[in-house]
Amino acid sequence: MPLENPFYTAEMQGAYELRSIGRFELDEGGVIEDLQLAVATYGTLNEAKNNAILIPTWFSGTHQTWEQAYIGPGRALDPERYFLVVVNQIGNGLSTSPHTTDDPSIAMSRFPQVRIGDDVRAQEILLRQEFGIERLALVVGGSMGAQQTWEWAVRFPDQVLRAAPIAGTAQNTPHDFLFTQTLMDAITSDPGWNGGEYGAAADVTHGLHRHADLWAVMGLTTDFWKTEFWRGISPVVEGLGWSTFAEFQQNFIRLLFGLMDPNALLTMGWKWQRGDVARNTGGDLAAALGRITATTYVMPIEQDMFFPPRDCEPEQRLTPNSELRMLHSVAGHFGLFGFEQSYLDEVDQHLSDLLAVER
Amino acid sequence: MPLENPFYTAEMQGAYELRSIGRFELDEGGVIEDLQLAVATYGTLNEAKNNAILIPTWFSGTHQTWEQAYIGPGRALDPERYFLVVVNQIGNGLSTSPHTTDDPSIAMSRFPQVRIGDDVRAQEILLRQEFGIERLALVVGGSMGAQQTWEWAVRFPDQVLRAAPIAGTAQNTPHDFLFTQTLMDAITSDPGWNGGEYGAAADVTHGLHRHADLWAVMGLTTDFWKTEFWRGISPVVEGLGWSTFAEFQQNFIRLLFGLMDPNALLTMGWKWQRGDVARNTGGDLAAALGRITATTYVMPIEQDMFFPPRDCEPEQRLTPNSELRMLHSVAGHFGLFGFEQSYLDEVDQHLSDLLAVER
Repeated sequence: MPLENPFYTAEMQGAYELRSIGRFELDEGGVIEDLQLAVATYGTLNEAKNNAILIPTWFSGTHQTWEQAYIGPGRALDPERYFLVVVNQIGNGLSTSPHTTDDPSIAMSRFPQVRIGDDVRAQEILLRQEFGIERLALVVGGSMGAQQTWEWAVRFPDQVLRAAPIAGTAQNTPHDFLFTQTLMDAITSDPGWNGGEYGAAADVTHGLHRHADLWAVMGLTTDFWKTEFWRGISPVVEGLGWSTFAEFQQNFIRLLFGLMDPNALLTMGWKWQRGDVARNTGGDLAAALGRITATTYVMPIEQDMFFPPRDCEPEQRLTPNSELRMLHSVAGHFGLFGFEQSYLDEVDQHLSDLLAVER
Repeated sequence: MPLENPFYTAEMQGAYELRSIGRFELDEGGVIEDLQLAVATYGTLNEAKNNAILIPTWFSGTHQTWEQAYIGPGRALDPERYFLVVVNQIGNGLSTSPHTTDDPSIAMSRFPQVRIGDDVRAQEILLRQEFGIERLALVVGGSMGAQQTWEWAVRFPDQVLRAAPIAGTAQNTPHDFLFTQTLMDAITSDPGWNGGEYGAAADVTHGLHRHADLWAVMGLTTDFWKTEFWRGISPVVEGLGWSTFAEFQQNFIRLLFGLMDPNALLTMGWKWQRGDVARNTGGDLAAALGRITATTYVMPIEQDMFFPPRDCEPEQRLTPNSELRMLHSVAGHFGLFGFEQSYLDEVDQHLSDLLAVER
């Protein structure tokens, strides 16, 4: 029986629709008999079906941040001009996930291993079957959304005209693998996790808090904390604010990540660790990136601690028709949340430039 | 009764002497009735007593790395020329520590909170009482050793002619505080820690391994892992090598940190979090650094993830008679271990330059 968790509802995340693509066989051998993707769309698909933009989601995230921070009239991602499709990744708590499925063969600890490539294949089916979309004006995503963006550009080069991976790599690094492992171990080391068979996410609160604490270090930056940037961030829960960095850590970061589902995070973490477009070319990264025909803007965030520019730049150099477009946020990787207008303006400028490239 | 732990012996760490400075009152109110400092010296104190160099130790470290990697004839830290005094920090497992003391009033969970300033005061007494040293040609230390170096230069400006804080700050940052907290929580979240009253360090192996895993992320760098630099590092235990990064993580990093004492690490962690020379000047960092009269070379390591150059540079700018001397290591903070000749050559060059400055 699915666990109730108010975090994974339209009330908390904003409206979305569940769209089934039926039986889906995963790369690692598992099967989801009825794969439901949680989809949010903005704008209208034109008759030529050439104004579609796909946005895959990041670790722990949903379509919500994209709706609230990146999409809007007059913005680069303009729903008056484009048909924007945000697809929540498999296992994120809205699409088919360990704690929400009513299929006992894949519930909780029995949820199969999912890869970035699985998400991309599922999205391709969804776009074709549900909307008749066979070519994308743009794929754009941040972090694990960037991993999916890279995978799209390599796996389906003829279907992606433009690609914008933000703060994410085509091939995950060992350093990043080890970081993600610490996130996962913070959860699984909590006795309340119980091998994935907890009775409620709250049983794993200690583990979820330790998981959140790691994000406070690697997700943010020394400048974020030193400048007390958190003073300007709005509380998630009204009345529950903060006046010290320790309170911000407790009432924002721990609170936010503490609402999430442990198995969902673990499903995404395992997937994140293994993002690698070179799986399409027998391990040859240069060959994989060489397949890309999309015009590609590679957009790292300067102070990002785990998808740093020094990991993104070599991939950009291997990608034909690509440019490096650096983003700047005092929040580092969490700049993705769109705390700063200056960061959002940079994103908009780069995406506008990219969308203006004739294809 | 003290716990036996072979890691904290002269066999493992190299020769040292225990020197008592008697009853010692700590800043936070605790008392160590008989504070014993583990001291290793190299070279001979001259008659003028003006050739002494003090080296305080870093988190989890001892005098050993200094002896093996930094000190030697013909090197900047030349025992044929200088009298080098390496003092192991309080609580590091060799100096008076929670698991080694036979004083039940401070054993294990009852060990008092120790501050960087306590170490520096204790070292000052030691140098004066044991050796009659009243002025230091140089204080040099890495990481928490740099914290102590900064504290020396601010607290006893007349006694420090030259200072070289390597990969450490004068005032700990909130980001670094949060990182250190994750290190400590990795240990204390292990049920085997038992509020500090474990029967053997091995009871806390899971926690020590998670602690080690965090070091693998923040102590090293993405380039270290990507370039497989670990292939060139010698095994700690003969025959126990590695051919993958996961094996290196297991057989080097987890093995090394897994040998340590949990309460010792926690004592040092608490101290590290609160390093702050501004405690000498009512919270005014500029005033504290302005007190320094030593010629000071501030030496961050370029890829250091938790004492990064961007945290060290502003402190250098506030310090009179100082220069920034950047170090480079693919191992980031763990460059301190001296894996690379190029890094050691840089350190030697900067320290030679500094020691050549007339004072």
